[in-house]
Amino acid sequence: MSSRRLRIALLGFGTVGSAVARRFTASDIPSGFALTHILDRRAALKRAQHAELSAVSWTSSIDEILRGDADVIVEAIGGVDPAASWIEAALAAGKSVVTANKQVMARHGSHLLRLAERQGRQLRFEAAVGGAMPIVGAVSDGLAGDRLTRIVAILNGTTNAVLSQVEATGCSLDAALADARARGFAEADPAADLDGDDARAKLAILCGIAFGVHVEPSRIPASSCATVDAGDFVAARRDGGTVRQIARAEFDYAHATLAASVSPEFVPRSSIFARTLGAANAAVLTGRYAGEVGLFGAGAGGDATAVAILGDLAAIARDPAAVVPAPRTTADFKFLGSNFKLLTSDVPVEAVC
Amino acid sequence: MSSRRLRIALLGFGTVGSAVARRFTASDIPSGFALTHILDRRAALKRAQHAELSAVSWTSSIDEILRGDADVIVEAIGGVDPAASWIEAALAAGKSVVTANKQVMARHGSHLLRLAERQGRQLRFEAAVGGAMPIVGAVSDGLAGDRLTRIVAILNGTTNAVLSQVEATGCSLDAALADARARGFAEADPAADLDGDDARAKLAILCGIAFGVHVEPSRIPASSCATVDAGDFVAARRDGGTVRQIARAEFDYAHATLAASVSPEFVPRSSIFARTLGAANAAVLTGRYAGEVGLFGAGAGGDATAVAILGDLAAIARDPAAVVPAPRTTADFKFLGSNFKLLTSDVPVEAVC
Repeated sequence: MSSRRLRIALLGFGTVGSAVARRFTASDIPSGFALTHILDRRAALKRAQHAELSAVSWTSSIDEILRGDADVIVEAIGGVDPAASWIEAALAAGKSVVTANKQVMARHGSHLLRLAERQGRQLRFEAAVGGAMPIVGAVSDGLAGDRLTRIVAILNGTTNAVLSQVEATGCSLDAALADARARGFAEADPAADLDGDDARAKLAILCGIAFGVHVEPSRIPASSCATVDAGDFVAARRDGGTVRQIARAEFDYAHATLAASVSPEFVPRSSIFARTLGAANAAVLTGRYAGEVGLFGAGAGGDATAVAILGDLAAIARDPAAVVPAPRTTADFKFLGSNFKLLTSDVPVEAVC
Repeated sequence: MSSRRLRIALLGFGTVGSAVARRFTASDIPSGFALTHILDRRAALKRAQHAELSAVSWTSSIDEILRGDADVIVEAIGGVDPAASWIEAALAAGKSVVTANKQVMARHGSHLLRLAERQGRQLRFEAAVGGAMPIVGAVSDGLAGDRLTRIVAILNGTTNAVLSQVEATGCSLDAALADARARGFAEADPAADLDGDDARAKLAILCGIAFGVHVEPSRIPASSCATVDAGDFVAARRDGGTVRQIARAEFDYAHATLAASVSPEFVPRSSIFARTLGAANAAVLTGRYAGEVGLFGAGAGGDATAVAILGDLAAIARDPAAVVPAPRTTADFKFLGSNFKLLTSDVPVEAVC
């Protein structure tokens, strides 16, 4: 690591952005970093509210950030526009980028990763999928030595919190949603969560790094969880399980065919998914050689997402010019939608050898 | 990635080494690699048995490997001697090293990682802990942005296979051991597994990368699983759980104190550990910011270990000169042995926010 501290510009001071900033004023901040710039639409107001960040340069102008001396941009504004073009501009300006933005990475990830490679900079996105659950690293590094064939996962913390509360209390979906909103992890409009848009974007990112295919999130068949009610849980319990929003994808290399879906599914009580409660995420990755490897952890929340962002920053601090592998794009593959041959969701933690 | 293929020399052609070699003759070998050398004590005999590897240069001489043109050494011979000095010599000769050797990394990891950094080469060891479960990457990369405080894990696949078979069948420990031996994942002498030596070495490695402390494996208090019998499982079941060999470590940063142990423990039925069957491994890592993050997967077997090795090779192929972080060694810390304040082993997959 260079002895010079990595200079960081933070775009967005919402739940995630402010959690990242808090880490830079805490007593246990990892060394080697300096938060130098914060961009926010209401920069003046937020600066006034955060005296502990008065040494930081606050701005509402992306041009000021791009012309500035920050080494790395942390993008935490969310949404495709203007985030995608800002990330592109930052890479073009010679800065590395860390993003928590699943929509941008799902839609424009291949292009942006190629740009980063051409620029000799890094674009990292562990925070875009699974919160603190390090699934991007597991797929693109730890399991890079396998040939992954299947992903089954809970990827939306809000929906999981709502469903597991209906399960636990027998309340209505609306009551559980209101509770999740009150606790700060559901949006005013929960459609992106319940209908599966959020999970589709995350699943598309995982398909890119696991199978090397680029699939438009909107093409992944999704069934909404908005119509799941307490009665569904009673019925599922009678059958020895419960209901979860499951994202799944399976790639058949021999025929270059991908099947993928996001929908409410019955999961057996013994599965890791039935035991995933609250805003947690969980994933089981199946490889030809290693069998099943699983991960679970906090899938939402500013602090958990900030952990993923700081891990990416640490990787950049070690090797600013390291080449992060771009998703290999298989030029030609058949997309089968939800036409799965296998519909296993019972994933006991068992030996695979 | 450079267009030149990474030239690999494999040391050892046992269970792990031969599984790695098999991947280089399979149809789905990741591109960018060439297996050029294999060292084995009985090189001539093994070469004769493996016509598919006749293009590889077989030898029994480490000097030939060190003088040769391989870029990376894969060390799969096991044991401290001569593996540690061979790894040192390979780094000194300007080669990167991938090792599956927990004993070498637990005892000499700090020294060897510093040497690798000085040499501008990589020393990677995902395969040394947890088989295909990517825990080394999770701790040193994915969760590098957290402040980890606790590790609770099943790290020895053989012991877990034996204990979970006694649990399932009510057979004696000896009968379960004989069965594990027949299935190829227990050594003739099971002491290193059951007594905890294997898990202590892995736990020491994790303490290094998670807490930045160097603890001699032999100083970690261990109780043997050799005396666990079917009756213990009956009693545990009555109390709502079962018995597993649990490795645990906890670091108190405020007082720079480490507590660690490896021993048979009661684990509640609802915990991830009770549900870990056969030769699988599982781990729950607790961080100050992300809460609990868990992993599970195949903890033993040549194919699973080869996945971890190939993942490390892929990382080296991308960035041969990348600096892998050396464990920060906290010069001074108090070692409390097994003096834990917390003795929680019930780890439901729950939201932490």
